[in-house]
Amino acid sequence: MTINAAYYCGNKTFAVEQIDAPAPGRGEVQIDIAYCGICGTDLHVYLGHMDARIGNHRVIGHEMSGRVAALGDGVSGFEVGQKVVVRPLDHCGDCPACNAGHQHICHKLKFLGLDTDGAFQQKWSVPAHTLHALPDDMSLDHAALVEPMAVATHDVRRAQVQPGEDVLVIGGGPIGMLVAVAARQAGAKVMISEVNEHRLALATEMGFDVVNPKTVDAAEAVTAATDGKGADVVFEVSGTQPGVDLMTAAAATRGRICMVAIHASKPQIDLFQFFWRELEMIGARVYEPSDYDQAIEWLSGGIGAERLITNVTSLGDIQSAFEDLTQVPTSMKTLIRVNEDV
Amino acid sequence: MTINAAYYCGNKTFAVEQIDAPAPGRGEVQIDIAYCGICGTDLHVYLGHMDARIGNHRVIGHEMSGRVAALGDGVSGFEVGQKVVVRPLDHCGDCPACNAGHQHICHKLKFLGLDTDGAFQQKWSVPAHTLHALPDDMSLDHAALVEPMAVATHDVRRAQVQPGEDVLVIGGGPIGMLVAVAARQAGAKVMISEVNEHRLALATEMGFDVVNPKTVDAAEAVTAATDGKGADVVFEVSGTQPGVDLMTAAAATRGRICMVAIHASKPQIDLFQFFWRELEMIGARVYEPSDYDQAIEWLSGGIGAERLITNVTSLGDIQSAFEDLTQVPTSMKTLIRVNEDV
Ligand SMILES: [Zn+2]
Ligand SMILES: [Zn+2]
Ligand SMILES: [Zn+2]
Ligand SMILES: [Zn+2]
Repeated sequence: MTINAAYYCGNKTFAVEQIDAPAPGRGEVQIDIAYCGICGTDLHVYLGHMDARIGNHRVIGHEMSGRVAALGDGVSGFEVGQKVVVRPLDHCGDCPACNAGHQHICHKLKFLGLDTDGAFQQKWSVPAHTLHALPDDMSLDHAALVEPMAVATHDVRRAQVQPGEDVLVIGGGPIGMLVAVAARQAGAKVMISEVNEHRLALATEMGFDVVNPKTVDAAEAVTAATDGKGADVVFEVSGTQPGVDLMTAAAATRGRICMVAIHASKPQIDLFQFFWRELEMIGARVYEPSDYDQAIEWLSGGIGAERLITNVTSLGDIQSAFEDLTQVPTSMKTLIRVNEDV
Repeated sequence: MTINAAYYCGNKTFAVEQIDAPAPGRGEVQIDIAYCGICGTDLHVYLGHMDARIGNHRVIGHEMSGRVAALGDGVSGFEVGQKVVVRPLDHCGDCPACNAGHQHICHKLKFLGLDTDGAFQQKWSVPAHTLHALPDDMSLDHAALVEPMAVATHDVRRAQVQPGEDVLVIGGGPIGMLVAVAARQAGAKVMISEVNEHRLALATEMGFDVVNPKTVDAAEAVTAATDGKGADVVFEVSGTQPGVDLMTAAAATRGRICMVAIHASKPQIDLFQFFWRELEMIGARVYEPSDYDQAIEWLSGGIGAERLITNVTSLGDIQSAFEDLTQVPTSMKTLIRVNEDV
């Protein structure tokens, strides 16, 4: 059976090709993809930053939703037509991380849709252990937010956010906004620091306190908003030196800093504050199965995260969808409608 | 009653003066000081780094042991002659840290022996709430190690070191060595990274594995010694950029890094590793009452820490004791014998 598949071909170019749908192998499930969102990582691929890992003929995409199309040999527990999402991690099962029970940060982790072909294609076959079932009444466009929401859920869980705590999120892109949503779900009072006025407006619409560090001293604003205490938890999602400066300046004594951003270079950090105020910093990467369960529960309840979906584009227009995301400052999350009828 | 008191007078100079012993005020206890060790902080004072805080007529010293000499009004629970040590922290009782139960990192913390006169004098009066009783049979020279041992105990508790874990201590000065001792008491397997050959030899004598990062790749040595896993807990005690580089390189996936050192400048940190391997960093400063209780219990049991005492000098020779510590590479911990007959 022929399907459409969007291949990243290097040089900021996608090509939609007709291919034979890969059949599900033993232990695999084939999925009809409904939607697949464009992740920040996908943008890095598009911009050529990851060619060494990806090559120049790869179907990317992992923020997906869909329905079970077919079951490979040896798979049970799923029904054709059932709504599902995929947790796109395949671990080795025998490294120090796997042996310690941290399969999601396996030393030889394969990320589906980067290290294997992904979900910007109409039928996708994946290991059955990566599937999470969705409630029947969950809409599949909202379900495309499960993967990034699970990232945010993992971050909030790693930071052990408690009801009533003051939380600062540094960086109001899609992940920062979802971290703010997850922290609010955990009962926290949330402020977002962001420099883009469109994002600040959206954050305000979504009910968050905001601060723009280009116009005011953000650490002072946090201190004033917390009766001189500072933020109990800071999420650094900006990946910038000013963000790293703010995270130590705005944290309360014994505050926790959750490192969400990927810092490609080594920023300078005010380590004295870690000593003086007994700060903690906690790294957080991807998600564990329970984060998916929590993200599905929260999203299916309606928590406002769907407002982050600013664009829905057909698979045939994937090229312009990527171009727009790097150029249009009002874009937040773009979903690709992979199968119009799923 | 006249006593001898050693005043820091600025310009790398101590002057021993005869003064009237300050009587214990209401709620205070007067102590006959037996021994008082020279701390790294005291060396900073001597070198003039803390003149703005200390002034130029201050009795410093806080790593002390002694016997109760007199009780001020309203004090009970102690007997004249009883062996004691002082936890030299006086908190405000009404700041965000105190209100959250973290009195030891009070925002207005007074450190006795820096912000008030300290223990390089024959009689010292301090608030009764700072005293910890010692076992009768504990020797008072070893008891002068309780304060730095409590620092190490606090560090190991903050890092939640578990039996069987692999621990790397970066920096083999007095605090690094005591952290190694405390981690071993907690059941860990400990390696010390240090560049000074005298300290490496002492660490080896004390039964620790050692690595000299000037001669081998220390991260590789840790990886090899832990079957490829890395250190479960790293204590950064060096206060150097190479130490900060090693801490992220040598930590296991999900490893904890305890920030013990005081980094006056802002080093560059490999934040990517925090994300990628979900590392944690935990700041640790001074101690809480339970750390003193634990340090007293451990030291009175005989745990080898007394080998760090390399010199004992009379109060009259305090000037040369400080000079030697900044010049003689084999010195580790110098105790000042404050009252010869206590
Ligand atoms: Zn993603
Ligand atoms: Zn693995
Ligand atoms: Zn000290
Ligand atoms: Zn206080």
